[in-house]
Amino acid sequence: MNQKNEDGYELWLRYRRVDNPDRLRQYRQAISRATVLGASETAEIIRRELGRALPALLDRAVPLSEQRPTGNALVVGTAGDLKPLGVSIPQVQRQNLGEEGFLIRSHQAGGDTWIVITGNAETTLLTGAFHFLRLLQTHQNIDNLNILSRPRIRHRLLAHWDNLDGSIERGYAGQSLWQWAELPETIDPRYHDYARACASIGLNGACLNNVNAQAQSLTTAYLEKVAALTDVFRPYGMRVYLSPVFSAPMQLGGLPTADPRDPAVTKWWQKKVDEIYRLIPDFGGFQVKANSEGQPGPQDYGANHDDGANMLAEALAPHGGILLWRAFVYDVSVDQDRAKCANKEFEPLDGKFRPNVLVQAKNGPIDFQPREPFHPLFGAMPQTPLALEVQITQEYLGQSIHLVYLADMWKEVLDADTYARGPGSTVAKIVDGSVFGHNTSCIVGVANTGSDRNWCGHHFSQANWYVFGRLAWDHQLSTETITEEWVRLTWSNDPLVLQSIKPMLHGSWPACIDYMTPLGLHHIMQEGHHYGPDPAFNSAPRQDWNCVYYHRADREGIGFDRSSSGSNAVGQYHPPLREQFGNLTTCPEKYLLWFHHVPWTHRLQSGRTLWEEMQHRYDEGVAFVEKMVDIWQGLQATIDSQRHQHVSQRLAQQLENARKWREVCLNYFGQFVSGEDT
Amino acid sequence: MNQKNEDGYELWLRYRRVDNPDRLRQYRQAISRATVLGASETAEIIRRELGRALPALLDRAVPLSEQRPTGNALVVGTAGDLKPLGVSIPQVQRQNLGEEGFLIRSHQAGGDTWIVITGNAETTLLTGAFHFLRLLQTHQNIDNLNILSRPRIRHRLLAHWDNLDGSIERGYAGQSLWQWAELPETIDPRYHDYARACASIGLNGACLNNVNAQAQSLTTAYLEKVAALTDVFRPYGMRVYLSPVFSAPMQLGGLPTADPRDPAVTKWWQKKVDEIYRLIPDFGGFQVKANSEGQPGPQDYGANHDDGANMLAEALAPHGGILLWRAFVYDVSVDQDRAKCANKEFEPLDGKFRPNVLVQAKNGPIDFQPREPFHPLFGAMPQTPLALEVQITQEYLGQSIHLVYLADMWKEVLDADTYARGPGSTVAKIVDGSVFGHNTSCIVGVANTGSDRNWCGHHFSQANWYVFGRLAWDHQLSTETITEEWVRLTWSNDPLVLQSIKPMLHGSWPACIDYMTPLGLHHIMQEGHHYGPDPAFNSAPRQDWNCVYYHRADREGIGFDRSSSGSNAVGQYHPPLREQFGNLTTCPEKYLLWFHHVPWTHRLQSGRTLWEEMQHRYDEGVAFVEKMVDIWQGLQATIDSQRHQHVSQRLAQQLENARKWREVCLNYFGQFVSGEDT
Repeated sequence: MNQKNEDGYELWLRYRRVDNPDRLRQYRQAISRATVLGASETAEIIRRELGRALPALLDRAVPLSEQRPTGNALVVGTAGDLKPLGVSIPQVQRQNLGEEGFLIRSHQAGGDTWIVITGNAETTLLTGAFHFLRLLQTHQNIDNLNILSRPRIRHRLLAHWDNLDGSIERGYAGQSLWQWAELPETIDPRYHDYARACASIGLNGACLNNVNAQAQSLTTAYLEKVAALTDVFRPYGMRVYLSPVFSAPMQLGGLPTADPRDPAVTKWWQKKVDEIYRLIPDFGGFQVKANSEGQPGPQDYGANHDDGANMLAEALAPHGGILLWRAFVYDVSVDQDRAKCANKEFEPLDGKFRPNVLVQAKNGPIDFQPREPFHPLFGAMPQTPLALEVQITQEYLGQSIHLVYLADMWKEVLDADTYARGPGSTVAKIVDGSVFGHNTSCIVGVANTGSDRNWCGHHFSQANWYVFGRLAWDHQLSTETITEEWVRLTWSNDPLVLQSIKPMLHGSWPACIDYMTPLGLHHIMQEGHHYGPDPAFNSAPRQDWNCVYYHRADREGIGFDRSSSGSNAVGQYHPPLREQFGNLTTCPEKYLLWFHHVPWTHRLQSGRTLWEEMQHRYDEGVAFVEKMVDIWQGLQATIDSQRHQHVSQRLAQQLENARKWREVCLNYFGQFVSGEDT
Repeated sequence: MNQKNEDGYELWLRYRRVDNPDRLRQYRQAISRATVLGASETAEIIRRELGRALPALLDRAVPLSEQRPTGNALVVGTAGDLKPLGVSIPQVQRQNLGEEGFLIRSHQAGGDTWIVITGNAETTLLTGAFHFLRLLQTHQNIDNLNILSRPRIRHRLLAHWDNLDGSIERGYAGQSLWQWAELPETIDPRYHDYARACASIGLNGACLNNVNAQAQSLTTAYLEKVAALTDVFRPYGMRVYLSPVFSAPMQLGGLPTADPRDPAVTKWWQKKVDEIYRLIPDFGGFQVKANSEGQPGPQDYGANHDDGANMLAEALAPHGGILLWRAFVYDVSVDQDRAKCANKEFEPLDGKFRPNVLVQAKNGPIDFQPREPFHPLFGAMPQTPLALEVQITQEYLGQSIHLVYLADMWKEVLDADTYARGPGSTVAKIVDGSVFGHNTSCIVGVANTGSDRNWCGHHFSQANWYVFGRLAWDHQLSTETITEEWVRLTWSNDPLVLQSIKPMLHGSWPACIDYMTPLGLHHIMQEGHHYGPDPAFNSAPRQDWNCVYYHRADREGIGFDRSSSGSNAVGQYHPPLREQFGNLTTCPEKYLLWFHHVPWTHRLQSGRTLWEEMQHRYDEGVAFVEKMVDIWQGLQATIDSQRHQHVSQRLAQQLENARKWREVCLNYFGQFVSGEDT
């Protein structure tokens, strides 16, 4: 046992001694002491963080003070606080920083060099401090620093699908972090650790309860609990959001209706929102799932999404709150192709929403599959800011058992060009508001956190939380950069570890697609829990709850014809995508069976027939998991045994599962393939 | 913040540097190195424990080896392993040690002094090692050691009322520790830490699932999970037990009946038990709740408890397993007084049980109330070994919110004289088998552990786990001794801390009785969850589910007449207790309203009327909680802020609750008291 056992609780904030002698010397020379200006709770948190990190990283005392330092030092303070120390930040740079940006700059103070971390608000100093500590943790050069960083998206949220009874819908890492029964009296120290982790990667909000919401969460008793959590989160720069249930005026207010056009209903919501803001002055807003999968909504009363959203938005507007209205709808009467429903319902409403409404779409048009083409709503509603929702928790991707790194999936979506205003209209730029000039923007990640000691169930699932935060802050960062950071922070700066884990991470998502749903297949998971394959499933009461609805395998071939001769879902994409996707010969093979029903004998770029390619892909997927098992085995002497063993156990299950996927899918699909096709 | 924050996970195994200079010098001189003989997993665990504890306690390196040491040293090995080193343990002492005893003895080895820890089995060495470390942790003198300790009770179990879905019936510290969904593939390191904690206080078994059992726990899939847990627990000397549901042959075996006299049923159980022992060769046995609170049992088929128990016992006997058959029954058709039911059902069966059956009774005849007289079954079944069940989790005593130390409650029960074979026939001696000469014995504590980081919800609830283990090992230990140990281990050896916390602990149980149910009152808690007062509750369908059934307050007075003129429950106790309890003037006031309906104007020893005394007791109870708040406040500078704050928050709630109890009970009972009585 070479390394001290770790349980994963520390996440990427491990602050181990810098074991690179040159860097250690540089850091010790550069940081003989640290000064944090300011008296706020946030300043106190920064002091605590530096007091914990610097002595551990530098392996020696680093005096902390609130005074002007002598010697080379780290100095943290707002531009205003820095002035008396003779550090002035030019006005243009202050403007450039905006509300949330930070600046890390080397500064000559007489014969000494200070590393100054500054920004316009104290919570941004915290973000900057974490950024700086990350430089040390990952052994970066800190000479002549001049880093200005600010987020490209305004609201960067984790959405917790946590129920009030402590269970988590699609949670695979234990129970909810929120101890509702104990709040507001008892403040679990883990609330602080949660907020700290979020702040360290640039997140600034959390929606606390499940979008399949219970009215109870809006009672005064629960709002007081929420307020207690908010008091913990506030100094970390984290704001709190809630998911209200649309029928709350009936359940809590005793009204006979929840019709958004009814003045009593409007008034009830206004009063409720006013109450929330009395308890939580910086409340972030609501995230609403309405008329979706059985949730109540305005359509229950003949009103429409805009009526519902605007009513709530008007209640929130005077307080500065935003309204996230989810576009995850698939009413079979709207269209027989589930993938088309959201656009058909929402496109006509473009321009009808209040300014503080964001329509929130998932990354793809179905539901968090291993791979989907981007959601065609992005680019289809120029007058409406669109929030992007991705799922950090791996509902369909092996949950907390499979090692699947989602960075490249999200990057594929963010970088996807919608052509909404010509080339370069990427999803990322739709979401950050730059394509259509929106001032507000939001990205939401469905959290994978829970009460498990390692937060996420799988040590590697922490990577998905990490990369979500980093991409939410700056979608222009390369995934390679973020991956390198995370591995160094979480595992080690040892080159062997880096060379081993980075390819595991980047290969894991393609492998998962291959052993689950290659070539555009989707939604062939077992019913309900969505773990494991069940392509034969065909007994659900609704067509689009069955696996056969999605893959449509028959004697001729396999795939969902969404071309113009099929459901014409391709028509919801801008040119040239609709043509590219709609044509079997130009459609990217990764989306082939998503958009086309393809003959088994169809030849792919590899020269293999479709059926041969499918077999090949399943084999490749399994082979990569085998490879991960080997790579990981090779790290046994380098990684602490507690974490190593835990991951080994998970990888063994993943391998067994991957083989099962291959077996079940090839057996099932194979029965449609005639001898001639093979 | 003077002390480093702690989250309570380490329990009483904190191994902080010995901060008493004289002791530190003594310890360093006495332990220059340590030798652990043997190659078993247990020997490895002992090495790991010493390797963790000694360098931390002594604040310097303590070389560990498996060789004969030179210099003063700690030497751990079985008598057989010690022989080659020239240490011989006399045969008579080896016999005296029995299977589970340990010996810690100073030994002269040439010019060196060794501290030798030995015993007949390796798991006893582990118990001995923990005992020795406790001496260091609590700053005891270790010169000329000669400690022989062996348990007075054979089976010392925690009973986990854990459901397979992860919830815990009457659990207030999070979810189940057992991650059934992840087992057997994933072994949570916490399983080791759980077994280690149990072993450190002398426990040797755990019943893993709720007595309100699910058949699923006996399926092969679940047994494989149980086997994986057992593999972790085994080297710590912890055996595993299960709670089977009596109807399992129908649910799992597809049989038309579970009648214990049906050969097919008998055979099913035999095969199931054989399967269990194939997977778990050292399986401990079953704990059964049958014909109790709706659970199926032999009476469903016209058979009786002995038929059911014996059938299961016969299946277990060839493998050495025991059967714990719970006597927690209260069928209203047996007796109108719930307190009498168990004796009426079980006394007639004395002598009818197989030798490996133990009838398991709770400490009192109702249900884990703040205070009950001992259960009259103890002493009433001389031919049957009786197991004692106490509840560590505080179902009726403020759950994980109230600081209530249960040591003195259990000690009161253990020391209670049943007079079954004349004076001195204490409950403890009935249970340990010495009164009636039984070879087998068992004590069961319903666990208060859960997934909360601090294991028990409240830092002080850890004390109840600790003291249960220590008393299970040796019921002759004084609670003062155990209390002093626990405070030193868990909090500090600082005299201020000791002087502050010890009186809090010892005063907390009397205070809880006073602010909840003084003078023999019982079962006036709110329905279902049993938290908070509801003395007016009278709407349950069964009389004995109502609070008014238990307190019987009216214009005349209050209390349940169980004297010979009432239900004559006193008749179930041996003389002289039946007379003492049955007479209003000789009945101990602590049991007054348990056994008597007492006029409001009745004068107590204090000179106060009953009603005045009740008011006084409620006041006293609340006053003590106020005092605890003050005492705790005084420790702010001495205790780490994380634990201090958590306990402060709990104490604030306890105070609010205690005041509520007083208000609700005095308001409610006061309405029966006329002006003349007050």
